[in-house]
Amino acid sequence: MNLLSKTIGAISPQDSALRETAKARLDQLIMPHWAMGQLMDLAVDLAGMTGSMSPALSRRTVVTMAGDHGVAAEGVSAYPQEVTPQMVMGIVAQIATINAMAKVTGTDVVVADLGVAADLSEVAAAGKIIDKKVAPGTANMAAGPAMTRQQAVQAIEAGIEIANDLAGSVDIFGTGDMGIANTTPSTAIVALLTGELVAGVTGRGTGIDDQQLANKVAVVEKALRVNSPDANDAIDVLSKVGGFEIGGIAGLILAAAAQKKPVVVDGFISTAGALIAHSLSPAAGDYIIAAHRSVERGHRAMHTHLGKQPLLDLNMRLGEGTGAALAMTLVEAAGRLLSDVATFEEAHVSEAE
Amino acid sequence: MNLLSKTIGAISPQDSALRETAKARLDQLIMPHWAMGQLMDLAVDLAGMTGSMSPALSRRTVVTMAGDHGVAAEGVSAYPQEVTPQMVMGIVAQIATINAMAKVTGTDVVVADLGVAADLSEVAAAGKIIDKKVAPGTANMAAGPAMTRQQAVQAIEAGIEIANDLAGSVDIFGTGDMGIANTTPSTAIVALLTGELVAGVTGRGTGIDDQQLANKVAVVEKALRVNSPDANDAIDVLSKVGGFEIGGIAGLILAAAAQKKPVVVDGFISTAGALIAHSLSPAAGDYIIAAHRSVERGHRAMHTHLGKQPLLDLNMRLGEGTGAALAMTLVEAAGRLLSDVATFEEAHVSEAE
Repeated sequence: MNLLSKTIGAISPQDSALRETAKARLDQLIMPHWAMGQLMDLAVDLAGMTGSMSPALSRRTVVTMAGDHGVAAEGVSAYPQEVTPQMVMGIVAQIATINAMAKVTGTDVVVADLGVAADLSEVAAAGKIIDKKVAPGTANMAAGPAMTRQQAVQAIEAGIEIANDLAGSVDIFGTGDMGIANTTPSTAIVALLTGELVAGVTGRGTGIDDQQLANKVAVVEKALRVNSPDANDAIDVLSKVGGFEIGGIAGLILAAAAQKKPVVVDGFISTAGALIAHSLSPAAGDYIIAAHRSVERGHRAMHTHLGKQPLLDLNMRLGEGTGAALAMTLVEAAGRLLSDVATFEEAHVSEAE
Repeated sequence: MNLLSKTIGAISPQDSALRETAKARLDQLIMPHWAMGQLMDLAVDLAGMTGSMSPALSRRTVVTMAGDHGVAAEGVSAYPQEVTPQMVMGIVAQIATINAMAKVTGTDVVVADLGVAADLSEVAAAGKIIDKKVAPGTANMAAGPAMTRQQAVQAIEAGIEIANDLAGSVDIFGTGDMGIANTTPSTAIVALLTGELVAGVTGRGTGIDDQQLANKVAVVEKALRVNSPDANDAIDVLSKVGGFEIGGIAGLILAAAAQKKPVVVDGFISTAGALIAHSLSPAAGDYIIAAHRSVERGHRAMHTHLGKQPLLDLNMRLGEGTGAALAMTLVEAAGRLLSDVATFEEAHVSEAE
């Protein structure tokens, strides 16, 4: 709890003076006013986050957090739980989608085991994944709390430790997830923290049918009824209806904010982690960049709650950090608007009449 | 006309067998079915365009076509005409937005003078721009044809020549434009070729006010009335209410299609060029990738007409090829879905139950 409190205490809002400096320069670039739209809004944010007019953005790492979920027993996913460790091994073997997407944008991928229900000690010992296993999967949240309060803090602090260990070699973080059934706890989190009805924010995850979807809604509603999480206490929410990797993602976001580094938040599960982080420290939201809008139904409500406009909207619903990896290029582009483009005065170009 | 006819004759639709092969492989990738959404649709297109399951996409060039417009005399733009050559020089000096965006995605930028109303012979002689000047600006389309039919063909063939000269060193083309007042002819083209009302597709371009916008609508309507272009004859449309750079863009697209290479089409002006190319050869549309949805009002109608879903939607309205340069990363990502990601069988990952 000490590391968590210390990290939250180190988070401050964006630098408002640098935001103004950035805005003043962007107003004068050789283009019709604000003609690069959302990338210019992002450029102002980047200056405010990093305190720099030429923000460092070249060293990029997506941390893909993996964990399993006891609620998988309720038939909420189209895939069996064994897929979680199989996909972890796929990422380690560089044959997964996140590897391909990260390669395109010059992004490193780091995999962390926050709570996979399989023995991954061999790959961990070989240094191929980070071992932060809290437990081999959460308990079934439809029957009781997914984890203890202590485990929830442990998961968040694991995410903080990962970000702090990487701090010296990373300019910008990305989040990612892997965990069969993890849209189910994410749905419970978005319903609780935004106040939306469960049925309105429950999606098809990996691709369940109408009957399975109705079951998923019922399972989430039952989990909320059985556990009565306190929406004003994000640790309680995470412990009752969360997941280990969701806690890890929340921790990574908090640590990035404390380091004054941007963190590109991927899809539905990552944004559930962002909701937890934002609830623990509203100022942490200042360091979040929303990578993309997922197909998953509740994602829009999450972005609205966080006040974020996603950069991409490509009908994606994969996770792993794929959207975060893809968005890195757009973030760099926004940074270069600050540092690389001339003003009318510098370029001797005529202004609007 | 010989080069144009020959180029159109060399264009054939996408390879439907390769599309099926691509779709079959993408169906089996280790992810929930089609979970990378629009990038998977694009991956099928890339296979169909290039006839390859590992399409070459690394050598990228955006060609920024510059030209001036006699209709600028009607007060349709917020900027004076001298900005066209000033911005050409800015791109040559690598201080413009397109340079910064292209750098981010490893894209080369080539500038071509299709009809700038200024003497650019010095930079052309120095090899810094391609000299394809048809004339120093079009005539005022509100008073008569913007150019002769012969000049329209010359502009298109100039675009073809540029693409053919670059063919040996380019895997994927991007289009771009620079030309004060060029949203005005583009508006006339979209109204004519899609059948939309002028007022419904006229936007604010570089940032004109309500009164100037009403004037712009009136100018476009007058140009259409005065010239009565034949919507079934794209050369007639281009000559009556087009622009030299718009013709060049159309030619580049036709040549890319003839070479079976993808061409990423930028914003409103570039898509006006795409409408001309598509009208001359509907099959050329098979090679077009829509980079982004611009703020410019008529852009949506263009994409609907072409049957294209843009990759980005970031409130941009700059041109120069900036959207095309940014979208290159997403196109590469789509290509890597074909070549770099394993199938369930290859990876020994369990499939959906």
